[in-house]
Amino acid sequence: MTGIKTTGQKKMMFFSGRAHPSLAEEVAGQLGVGVVPTKAFDFANGEIYVRFQESARGADCFLMQSHTAPINKWIMEQLIMVDALKRASARSITVIVPFYGYARQDKKHRGREPISARLVADLLKTAGADRILTIDLHTDQIQGFFDGPVDHLFALPVLTDYVGGKVDRSKLTVVSPDAGRVRVADRWCDRLGAPLAIVHKRRDPDVANQVTVHEVVGDVRGRVCVLVDDMVDTGGTICAAADALFANGAEDVIVAATHGVLSGPAADRLKNSKVSEFIFTNTLPTPSEVDVDKITVLSMAPTIARAVREVFEDGSVTSLFDEQA
Amino acid sequence: MTGIKTTGQKKMMFFSGRAHPSLAEEVAGQLGVGVVPTKAFDFANGEIYVRFQESARGADCFLMQSHTAPINKWIMEQLIMVDALKRASARSITVIVPFYGYARQDKKHRGREPISARLVADLLKTAGADRILTIDLHTDQIQGFFDGPVDHLFALPVLTDYVGGKVDRSKLTVVSPDAGRVRVADRWCDRLGAPLAIVHKRRDPDVANQVTVHEVVGDVRGRVCVLVDDMVDTGGTICAAADALFANGAEDVIVAATHGVLSGPAADRLKNSKVSEFIFTNTLPTPSEVDVDKITVLSMAPTIARAVREVFEDGSVTSLFDEQA
Amino acid sequence: MTGIKTTGQKKMMFFSGRAHPSLAEEVAGQLGVGVVPTKAFDFANGEIYVRFQESARGADCFLMQSHTAPINKWIMEQLIMVDALKRASARSITVIVPFYGYARQDKKHRGREPISARLVADLLKTAGADRILTIDLHTDQIQGFFDGPVDHLFALPVLTDYVGGKVDRSKLTVVSPDAGRVRVADRWCDRLGAPLAIVHKRRDPDVANQVTVHEVVGDVRGRVCVLVDDMVDTGGTICAAADALFANGAEDVIVAATHGVLSGPAADRLKNSKVSEFIFTNTLPTPSEVDVDKITVLSMAPTIARAVREVFEDGSVTSLFDEQA
Amino acid sequence: MTGIKTTGQKKMMFFSGRAHPSLAEEVAGQLGVGVVPTKAFDFANGEIYVRFQESARGADCFLMQSHTAPINKWIMEQLIMVDALKRASARSITVIVPFYGYARQDKKHRGREPISARLVADLLKTAGADRILTIDLHTDQIQGFFDGPVDHLFALPVLTDYVGGKVDRSKLTVVSPDAGRVRVADRWCDRLGAPLAIVHKRRDPDVANQVTVHEVVGDVRGRVCVLVDDMVDTGGTICAAADALFANGAEDVIVAATHGVLSGPAADRLKNSKVSEFIFTNTLPTPSEVDVDKITVLSMAPTIARAVREVFEDGSVTSLFDEQA
Amino acid sequence: MTGIKTTGQKKMMFFSGRAHPSLAEEVAGQLGVGVVPTKAFDFANGEIYVRFQESARGADCFLMQSHTAPINKWIMEQLIMVDALKRASARSITVIVPFYGYARQDKKHRGREPISARLVADLLKTAGADRILTIDLHTDQIQGFFDGPVDHLFALPVLTDYVGGKVDRSKLTVVSPDAGRVRVADRWCDRLGAPLAIVHKRRDPDVANQVTVHEVVGDVRGRVCVLVDDMVDTGGTICAAADALFANGAEDVIVAATHGVLSGPAADRLKNSKVSEFIFTNTLPTPSEVDVDKITVLSMAPTIARAVREVFEDGSVTSLFDEQA
Amino acid sequence: MTGIKTTGQKKMMFFSGRAHPSLAEEVAGQLGVGVVPTKAFDFANGEIYVRFQESARGADCFLMQSHTAPINKWIMEQLIMVDALKRASARSITVIVPFYGYARQDKKHRGREPISARLVADLLKTAGADRILTIDLHTDQIQGFFDGPVDHLFALPVLTDYVGGKVDRSKLTVVSPDAGRVRVADRWCDRLGAPLAIVHKRRDPDVANQVTVHEVVGDVRGRVCVLVDDMVDTGGTICAAADALFANGAEDVIVAATHGVLSGPAADRLKNSKVSEFIFTNTLPTPSEVDVDKITVLSMAPTIARAVREVFEDGSVTSLFDEQA
Repeated sequence: MTGIKTTGQKKMMFFSGRAHPSLAEEVAGQLGVGVVPTKAFDFANGEIYVRFQESARGADCFLMQSHTAPINKWIMEQLIMVDALKRASARSITVIVPFYGYARQDKKHRGREPISARLVADLLKTAGADRILTIDLHTDQIQGFFDGPVDHLFALPVLTDYVGGKVDRSKLTVVSPDAGRVRVADRWCDRLGAPLAIVHKRRDPDVANQVTVHEVVGDVRGRVCVLVDDMVDTGGTICAAADALFANGAEDVIVAATHGVLSGPAADRLKNSKVSEFIFTNTLPTPSEVDVDKITVLSMAPTIARAVREVFEDGSVTSLFDEQA
Repeated sequence: MTGIKTTGQKKMMFFSGRAHPSLAEEVAGQLGVGVVPTKAFDFANGEIYVRFQESARGADCFLMQSHTAPINKWIMEQLIMVDALKRASARSITVIVPFYGYARQDKKHRGREPISARLVADLLKTAGADRILTIDLHTDQIQGFFDGPVDHLFALPVLTDYVGGKVDRSKLTVVSPDAGRVRVADRWCDRLGAPLAIVHKRRDPDVANQVTVHEVVGDVRGRVCVLVDDMVDTGGTICAAADALFANGAEDVIVAATHGVLSGPAADRLKNSKVSEFIFTNTLPTPSEVDVDKITVLSMAPTIARAVREVFEDGSVTSLFDEQA
Repeated sequence: MTGIKTTGQKKMMFFSGRAHPSLAEEVAGQLGVGVVPTKAFDFANGEIYVRFQESARGADCFLMQSHTAPINKWIMEQLIMVDALKRASARSITVIVPFYGYARQDKKHRGREPISARLVADLLKTAGADRILTIDLHTDQIQGFFDGPVDHLFALPVLTDYVGGKVDRSKLTVVSPDAGRVRVADRWCDRLGAPLAIVHKRRDPDVANQVTVHEVVGDVRGRVCVLVDDMVDTGGTICAAADALFANGAEDVIVAATHGVLSGPAADRLKNSKVSEFIFTNTLPTPSEVDVDKITVLSMAPTIARAVREVFEDGSVTSLFDEQA
Repeated sequence: MTGIKTTGQKKMMFFSGRAHPSLAEEVAGQLGVGVVPTKAFDFANGEIYVRFQESARGADCFLMQSHTAPINKWIMEQLIMVDALKRASARSITVIVPFYGYARQDKKHRGREPISARLVADLLKTAGADRILTIDLHTDQIQGFFDGPVDHLFALPVLTDYVGGKVDRSKLTVVSPDAGRVRVADRWCDRLGAPLAIVHKRRDPDVANQVTVHEVVGDVRGRVCVLVDDMVDTGGTICAAADALFANGAEDVIVAATHGVLSGPAADRLKNSKVSEFIFTNTLPTPSEVDVDKITVLSMAPTIARAVREVFEDGSVTSLFDEQA
Repeated sequence: MTGIKTTGQKKMMFFSGRAHPSLAEEVAGQLGVGVVPTKAFDFANGEIYVRFQESARGADCFLMQSHTAPINKWIMEQLIMVDALKRASARSITVIVPFYGYARQDKKHRGREPISARLVADLLKTAGADRILTIDLHTDQIQGFFDGPVDHLFALPVLTDYVGGKVDRSKLTVVSPDAGRVRVADRWCDRLGAPLAIVHKRRDPDVANQVTVHEVVGDVRGRVCVLVDDMVDTGGTICAAADALFANGAEDVIVAATHGVLSGPAADRLKNSKVSEFIFTNTLPTPSEVDVDKITVLSMAPTIARAVREVFEDGSVTSLFDEQA
Repeated sequence: MTGIKTTGQKKMMFFSGRAHPSLAEEVAGQLGVGVVPTKAFDFANGEIYVRFQESARGADCFLMQSHTAPINKWIMEQLIMVDALKRASARSITVIVPFYGYARQDKKHRGREPISARLVADLLKTAGADRILTIDLHTDQIQGFFDGPVDHLFALPVLTDYVGGKVDRSKLTVVSPDAGRVRVADRWCDRLGAPLAIVHKRRDPDVANQVTVHEVVGDVRGRVCVLVDDMVDTGGTICAAADALFANGAEDVIVAATHGVLSGPAADRLKNSKVSEFIFTNTLPTPSEVDVDKITVLSMAPTIARAVREVFEDGSVTSLFDEQA
């Protein structure tokens, strides 16, 4: 045969945008690699400049960016970095998105709206992403928005281990703050063997979208309630739900969610709430204005690092969560 | 200018596969057009042959097929018909899918599963579909699986008008048969001003996926319960939920769902159930083995026909459902 | 350099749908691997469920499905399995299609027909297939329907070795049953050094598509005729051709075809025919209602297995058939 | 509604490359339009420059180019013109390809060959073509190489009307020059009610591809033979076939083919052949070195013009050829 | 024919993002339409919400957004709005981008950089844009980054009319501030019949990228110099060039550029410069901190509005700039 | 795990079209491999036939073709070869294009023109190219026309080393022959520490595109001028510029350009010019009619070979040109 033959090699490189550098460092540390040195800054008019300081040619590249505020900037930076990796002859590009932005816009609630969560998947694909690795999508269906593999990690083991190790399980009731989030609560029930309750927003049928009362469906009197959700953004829903639980006789309320977005009025609401503890993971940086006294932050870095290693070594990400796989 | 100018014309043509001819006739009747004569048959080895007997060149084509059993055959027939329309120079192809097959496989429940609902959207796109017109998708997110417009119709007005006109509203409680379907029930609550209850499957945390008890969350004693869902397939979940409601003191239980799939053991289960009435729409043909005594079938043909007309005339499908649009 | 380097590895995995399990077992045996354990079943409404029980991450996956009856179901199952492999991070997906469905619909015979053979190629591509490995396509041009590599295997050596070893070559005439299949017969002539004849359907020019007589073009009196084709479906064409040969003085007629579809009236026709032997390969399972007395089935498993091995090891599939390559 | 409404208009414009201007003028004349004035020339290094001198915005553009010699140049010119139309906001682009280049490379005859006929379809699509209008493709399957509508016109009526009106039908035998072209001859037989014969190239099985003899299958003694094919290129096959017919006692031989490529040795071969008449259409310009005495050229311009009109007016191209459509 | 026929209608609708509302109002006013009422706001975490308050079905939609600061937010908003229009069944989507962001990153200056200007084109395409209408791209080649029509408008007539009507042409010299921008200056020379000069940055060959001196190539002593560029961002290059011109004896210096980005230190630099007048167009809003005394802003709204009208009415945008077209 | 594992191997193969065989041999020699034996010829009607004589399965294939005259033929041959490699299961396809055809048509100079340089990139992509390796594109932006990696090599080091080693640097002035090519000259200035001059074509503003005078901007009296450009085609611009330099007192003029296209009148113009030396690289074969006395040809083969090696071995192409990378 005419040509040259050599033994194949595989190279893994870990890149990060500027959105959440401490998580990147933590994951890289767990992996035992450094974050690839990258020049990234904003021009005066806000355009982002990016250049990698090492060759990515032929490497399996993992590029992490969490979609925290300013969210559009960090999404755009991730797209630009993917474009640069594609043009630099990366062998494969896995984008790690600990918190996937625009996930709540995963359908048209009414006509003439965008489906921005699909758009984000399309933009990542167009820029050159081959695979998405993400954590606790707002709805599981978002996996299907990407035309390629999505490795979907769960914070449930980390969160339930913490809560289960702290609270008297016999007094525990899992509560969904909303009719639309019962499925998350259901998984908590399964894992902790606890009963379910729901805070249901009754609306006045004669006045569109007007919530009249937060009705508690199920029994919470004297119970320790864990209000669970995938994310806490402004804290409005979750704090109102907590109030309703206390009003219905709950002994204590704690809140557990994967993503602590905590934007806008969240700082005040969390501070003023009677909730005894808020538990989040570090998929997002905690905003500086938030009083961290009542907040517990659990790290997803070990989980992410193990998943990256499985992906790179052609192992099984499923096996990380699925005992009977 | 060199060339020829003429006034533009628009042509609308309505086609149907062989899955559910009576609905096609009914919609065509409402539209005031005939179904385009089409030669369609199976070769001896099961391959489908299709040929349209009128030119579709330049027409806005609407092609209806409901994904009833044998479901893979009817999906394939629809794809083949779309291919034929594309190659016959149709101006646009809107596929009407009253019941969208594989909708429940809208995510990976576990690793190494397909996302078949996305696959169906991709196959339709590849064959040449420009737009999907469908009714009550299993989850709204499936809209985002298609890279193009999805006109999503709702049976809620038709169903709630019927139920609301029949039952004493003050006694009515809306019940979700499952933690995952609470959002549908929530919409019924809003529309009818009724309280919510949930049948929750408790699982034994030590035995994976083992349901131990159907727990009723919320108050149903002495109430007339409407168990609501998007579809009833084998009837297992819905009949077990009805039993739990009766066991918890419900006065009566009726079942309302958009899609009456009614496959396998459904015929027996419905017959043997204490549920007083099952209400479906005609998005699917009712299987012949099902005893129709307790079943009420409401027609979606007027809704589909109005939507087709809005699409063809560049009106607003949103306005059909959204008073305040 | 920042990152991790390891030696590359290649993994081959062999999967099969449920259409023709005995061939899958035979090929896997030849390859010295097992078929990957896979959970596949039909839901009550006919939707197919699939899940692989081992991780396919990073593997070169070969997925076999022959498009036998019920053909639309097995095509759909193959598409769903490809989707699942794609989302499970397979490195490459080669679909093995021993008999490629809808191959006869490879052109528009008349306006407003589909080109279903192209559609099947597009569907496979969309689902995620990278390469097709198939046997004796109805027309070679179908290779060009797929935008990627098609490894096209031939049954000719297997069939001609068998026939050539059995029949007195000096008495042999190769016969095409139809004007459109002469090219296949021509290859047999080349390989066996035998003369050619054709059964030609004369049509009445005043009555469209009305066949008036099966005219034998060429000399068959006293000859042993091998009627050759790529497939025998209902057996109508081939049995009528055999009758014409006997009527023109043929001493004996045998039939050889790669694909024994044998649907509908084929069982009766083969039984009643004066043809002394029907020779097929095992690209398709033989329908149970067919009397197998006069049928000889030759195995393509060794050929498929060698081709898979060449593909996986970056060898040459061409070299399997092409002495002077 | 916010916005502006006007009555829609349709505009048709007819463009031509430089390959075959006389046919373009003839078609445009039949259509009653002018060919759009276009600046097209070669730069000194052979790069082609094109600019349309009228706005094509919003027009249904028909762009004709026949793939005559120098074939690669004219294909490239057509691609460049399509690109220019796409960027000039044409509403639709139909490429008219009276003779489709590379049609004979419609499959891999052996491994590691291209499928150039598919490539040409892909290139046209990529440049921006929406539809292909072409005449007598070498094989019908090439229609399926294009992902969009292909309007396939036939010269058969024009050719058979001419031949049928000239020759005593009772003496006529239709002859295929080759085992691979019998299907074309078959269509002639159907249309003229004439018997079929085939010139078959016997090869020595011990010497690959070595033709030993041109065997005439069927009876031609004393007959007037029409040798038919889709194209005559160098004339080698067709003239050898004619010799074989005369050697087998044919009274006269005429040749009819849609495309008179007539390249290389064709001029000499036609001149020296005993064939009494060669009949072609004007899909290609007749090379200047060819002696036109024995050649009859029939015009396809009326057929093309009627097809263009049907396409533009959303009529039916099928109906031009298909009485019973 | 089965079906319905009506006369076609065309509808034009004009939409705007929130980046530069005053330009949108001005263009809409010129067009004689209103901007379509649109609900657009930021959620607390920065995600953008958009909904159009009128049906866009079947309309030719023009969506304007200038990529001003915060640039990534406004690009993202435009993408989201395009997605919403696509899913709302817009007939066509033309994005109007008076200032195209990331245009300066139109190539890899060094390895491992992105080509962000191509990325922006790809993102717009992916979201659903059919056509781009823009003004004075940083380089003309960016037109080729979009796979579709780009209507490229020029501010040159507006700018040169203003400058030519104000300054004594016999004293005028056109100056490029940089070796890379000479082509823009060349067009000014052609239009005003003025001589050319260049400010050239000499670099020390021993020290990479170290500019040692601003060398004036050409004669500027006693001349009124117009320094021309497509944009002024921080003002560094242009003010240094002006200093070099004054140092070389220029009598006066004015600056003319299409896009007044004016970010970061630009406010101070413009204020402190000896340049007598800065002339921009209103493709971007003037930042509030910029002292507007020396700044003249010319409106591009009439040009944009005329181009939109030509696009909608299938006229010619070329003809707006090209007298001899 | 079910399946087979082996150690991965990488194979590199080097292919060449027929356009510039001597460069292919030289590069292959530098790489220490042979050019893969390939059968390539023209059919009588000009269609190109290609077949590789070794299996390319699984190989990283590098396919070189320089776009010399007849340019459309060689582009088409390259596309056909890429198609053949894709269908032959190449692992990756890098097209090497030492001179990229149609590069000057990289934008619409006026409305209704193509952007042929983008078209060429699209055609290569469609045929199956994964990466482009090219030298001194006419404009750097063309990199962005390809949706994938472009490895852009520079002849600047080769050319400036030669010129810098020959000419007294203190007397050297770098001259751009045109306002549009100043950026190339600027890079020469940086590299050689020499001053800049420009030959500027003044046009009469009252007569469109009428060049009235070649004005020399900058000081050239008594200087040794290097006129630099990326290519010399007909030689018109460069020879007129040289005349202007001599007329303005230049002591000597030499010309240096990467690509010696030298078509049409170039042979005469170079012969008759007072320029003392023309320096090109061998990206293109020198036309036979050109008098080579005054021409120096420098080889790019070592640079190409090193780049190929870096690509194959996942090294860094950037590092070949970028000391401080």
